[in-house]
Amino acid sequence: MNPTSTPATLSYEQAGVNYDLIDPLKVTAQRAAAATAGHLAAHGFTEVAASRGESAYVVDVGPFYLASIVECLGSKALVADEMHALTGKSYYDGIAQDTIAMAINDLITVGATPLVVQAYWAAGGSEWFADAQRSQALVAGWKRACDVCRVAWGGGETPALAGIVEAGRIDLAASCTGLINPKTRLSVGDQLAPGDAIVLLASSGIHANGLSLARKLVERLPQGYLTEVAPGLTYGDALLAPTVLYSPVTEALYAAGITPHYCANITGHGWRKLLRHPAEHRYRIHSVPAVTPVLKFIQRHAGQDDREAYSTLNMGAGFAIFVAAADAQRTVDVARAQGIEALVAGQVEAGPKELLIEPLGIRFGTDDLQLR
Amino acid sequence: MNPTSTPATLSYEQAGVNYDLIDPLKVTAQRAAAATAGHLAAHGFTEVAASRGESAYVVDVGPFYLASIVECLGSKALVADEMHALTGKSYYDGIAQDTIAMAINDLITVGATPLVVQAYWAAGGSEWFADAQRSQALVAGWKRACDVCRVAWGGGETPALAGIVEAGRIDLAASCTGLINPKTRLSVGDQLAPGDAIVLLASSGIHANGLSLARKLVERLPQGYLTEVAPGLTYGDALLAPTVLYSPVTEALYAAGITPHYCANITGHGWRKLLRHPAEHRYRIHSVPAVTPVLKFIQRHAGQDDREAYSTLNMGAGFAIFVAAADAQRTVDVARAQGIEALVAGQVEAGPKELLIEPLGIRFGTDDLQLR
Repeated sequence: MNPTSTPATLSYEQAGVNYDLIDPLKVTAQRAAAATAGHLAAHGFTEVAASRGESAYVVDVGPFYLASIVECLGSKALVADEMHALTGKSYYDGIAQDTIAMAINDLITVGATPLVVQAYWAAGGSEWFADAQRSQALVAGWKRACDVCRVAWGGGETPALAGIVEAGRIDLAASCTGLINPKTRLSVGDQLAPGDAIVLLASSGIHANGLSLARKLVERLPQGYLTEVAPGLTYGDALLAPTVLYSPVTEALYAAGITPHYCANITGHGWRKLLRHPAEHRYRIHSVPAVTPVLKFIQRHAGQDDREAYSTLNMGAGFAIFVAAADAQRTVDVARAQGIEALVAGQVEAGPKELLIEPLGIRFGTDDLQLR
Repeated sequence: MNPTSTPATLSYEQAGVNYDLIDPLKVTAQRAAAATAGHLAAHGFTEVAASRGESAYVVDVGPFYLASIVECLGSKALVADEMHALTGKSYYDGIAQDTIAMAINDLITVGATPLVVQAYWAAGGSEWFADAQRSQALVAGWKRACDVCRVAWGGGETPALAGIVEAGRIDLAASCTGLINPKTRLSVGDQLAPGDAIVLLASSGIHANGLSLARKLVERLPQGYLTEVAPGLTYGDALLAPTVLYSPVTEALYAAGITPHYCANITGHGWRKLLRHPAEHRYRIHSVPAVTPVLKFIQRHAGQDDREAYSTLNMGAGFAIFVAAADAQRTVDVARAQGIEALVAGQVEAGPKELLIEPLGIRFGTDDLQLR
């Protein structure tokens, strides 16, 4: 992908996730899933077909739309475990927020108000839960994230899965259900059009994507996770900054009378997620946000050029909101009022489909992204 | 718990799941979760408080109730892996059905029609998905279970979690969202009353609970999973009979004008699940269903007396429906029309709270069950 990479460059695939092996299954599963949509008619409902391939699945249930999702934390808990061994601190309150953010930030892309979160905490054995400090931190962080997003924590599962989950580890996920109400809040992209502005909301760091790469990188650092990325801030602590919860912004936008035309949660595949919608639009970025120290640090130590970095990591932008140009500055103001930095970063133009990050001279085309 | 057990008896705790370690976390989590219910008011909704502690969480969203859940398969996939190694067959189509059944059979207890299922397939590495036979079986079984339950498969997650999930293994779960529509279908137990009949629906075998015990038992069998439990039926094949999907029955009951007063999905804790509802009722069982060969086999080889067996395994009854006595026989007829054997097994009486399994001389009291 990157002809200027030196042999020292660490790509995402080198870090242990091989999408070529997963993708055939995904395609088969997506086809089979799509073929089940007709069952909704038996109950008097229909799917919103445009939500297939989007971050959350949407069903028209009459008075409003129903959105649902399940999302995995990924491998970030392994960093928390390493840092706990090094510092004695428990990071599971932040890990809980990360897990909920993975679900909530996806659910809101379609215009949904998150209502109920369910917890999926699958441990490698009953012993995991016996560490009271860690367990209480997980519960407290989960509760606090629900409070921030004003969702009800409905319940969940806490299985002990010895033989499936590794001893001493935990597999964390969250499911989330919400409503798109009123139905005019639906933002699956049919209103996305040339002239729209692209507003980027700041990330807090790596969030919960790119951790396989970040963990692999530790092998290259003489002080490992305790290497400083900024004065007084270790690599491990910086990685563990909890993912920003963006639903307070999307709810405040609704309260302010602003309806996004589309949203993209910038997770795996980095900024290529801006190309998510299938329409033939060009996305021209004229301003990029400040890059958090830990992401700069990863880019430098992984030997990635900008193109590789922006195609893998969020590079300071955790969430993208596409709004009418007239709403762009107000969208920034609404986000800031919620304590989240934002900027008007670019605009949508007539196609061909591509992303131009002008300040960095980067272009991504459709061949750079097979997400759907 | 069982004073007549010999030292050879294998209990669930001996099989490796220690609820004493998990339960303090569960209590803390349940309290924290309950404290989040007030957030729904910000969106104009309220929780159905009686659903706290039930198998699915219910929110009143106005025109209908919204129910949601996430459920884990547990360790049954380990049996599939062992049997694959012994026979070369893939059992993942059945495993897919088991996983969906765990979610659907819980969701329907509150009166919900399942609408959307999300898949959570977390593998120990990308390589898991590269086995095309296994992957295709998982997809095909998942699709077929959705077809049987007439739910839309919305999407899901297929993470590769090396370092968290063991190499070569997969952690399977499903989330499910449904509606209780009309609202009179809500069955969280407020209508449960003395005089109601208890109808038990047949299980297909062990379903997906008690597998830790069943796996532990293999060490005692000279031919392991290939030991016959009945002529031509190996222990492994019998264990892997897919869990019955009960939503066709609950949907057919609604179509027949029968509204259950309460339902119990008989999973972990076996028949003690009949004591799930907090009200002070006595549940008197006068007839027990036939016990499937694999459950008889487990009971015998684990050295369990009836009390231990019925407190751990489903013993032939996978799902309990509590209906008005006048509806009891029709409920059986409706289930049979869906191809699922059923019987009127007993009735609800004025308390104290206890379960009497008269044909076996077994009594379970409240001290035998802390589920909520």
